[in-house]
Amino acid sequence: MALGWARAGEEVLIGSRSVEHAEQAAKEINAAMGRGAASGLTNREAALSGQIVVLTVPYDAQEERLWDIRDEVRGKIVVSVVVPIDTGNARRLREAPGGSAAEEAQTLLGPESRVVAAFQSISHDHLAKMGALDSDVLVCGDDAEARQEVIRLAALLGFRGLDAGPLRNARVVEGLTVLLLEINRRFKSRGTGIRVTGISYGDQATG
Amino acid sequence: MALGWARAGEEVLIGSRSVEHAEQAAKEINAAMGRGAASGLTNREAALSGQIVVLTVPYDAQEERLWDIRDEVRGKIVVSVVVPIDTGNARRLREAPGGSAAEEAQTLLGPESRVVAAFQSISHDHLAKMGALDSDVLVCGDDAEARQEVIRLAALLGFRGLDAGPLRNARVVEGLTVLLLEINRRFKSRGTGIRVTGISYGDQATG
Repeated sequence: MALGWARAGEEVLIGSRSVEHAEQAAKEINAAMGRGAASGLTNREAALSGQIVVLTVPYDAQEERLWDIRDEVRGKIVVSVVVPIDTGNARRLREAPGGSAAEEAQTLLGPESRVVAAFQSISHDHLAKMGALDSDVLVCGDDAEARQEVIRLAALLGFRGLDAGPLRNARVVEGLTVLLLEINRRFKSRGTGIRVTGISYGDQATG
Repeated sequence: MALGWARAGEEVLIGSRSVEHAEQAAKEINAAMGRGAASGLTNREAALSGQIVVLTVPYDAQEERLWDIRDEVRGKIVVSVVVPIDTGNARRLREAPGGSAAEEAQTLLGPESRVVAAFQSISHDHLAKMGALDSDVLVCGDDAEARQEVIRLAALLGFRGLDAGPLRNARVVEGLTVLLLEINRRFKSRGTGIRVTGISYGDQATG
């Protein structure tokens, strides 16, 4: 995703607990781009300087990572790509006590951050096919403006982002990711996605 | 759905608490078909004579209706089209204590019936467009043979049925129906559906 946004002209800050890791990832993006589009930082530095913060960590690590950047993301959009997958069985959803990983993130960060759930079921395979994508990104969050901003980020990666309503719906979208892993296995696919049918894109009501 | 299956050559038995209601529905199907393809019966009679029983009742009525036909559906496939929608807000999923309406049906009927969850998000609009459908039917159940039988029933209505694994996944599929209602509203659509992308139909593994 970082590479995709860099390609679309966005400045990308990669955060990691290990600055070396982050710098290495940024270096690979810059090499692919032939210019300095990405930088590697600590999580806190990246969260502080970033305008929109995208959280792509395992569910088990979410709480700790979010506490670490809680002050830095105040007032910002935080995009949760987290899915509470059962570590013992990746096709089985774990019960998230707060309903979904994204709702738990919102509770943890408090109302000053605007959590938006998106991109959970986008596979490496989808990202590699940028520009020829037939999968949608369902975007849930309690702030309408934040949802629209994330729909814009999805479009930069070549995806149709769809406003899927309040953050509470993240529990369905996260569950859908696990269902798609099940279907991947049954159909021997490397990356299934979903497409919502029966809508005209231009008809989307905002708010 | 009854009309669709009748058109596909299946014999359809319609059950209702009111035989008059059931007979009226059957009469309309027979008039549309120009032959006697459907009969109206009580729920118990329909459940007893039917080979596959399709349950399309409101969530609140499910328990009572299932108790009524518990003995009659022993050994049979019971297809649950039920969604635990919040009656106060149709775009909000209710918490089903058993995880999903379909899992609750399986618990109530016991292991001798094979509950399969399917068709929840198929709208009137989809059924009216039979033959030109781009929406999939996700099929969940703990019995692989029963899932395949329901995939066949979906094909008779013009839908691609997809094996979506164990009955536990019904909680995601039921939730997805509520999410689609939300998207219907936002996009002013009469019937959104979903299409799973990234698979070749012929690749489906059974079992």
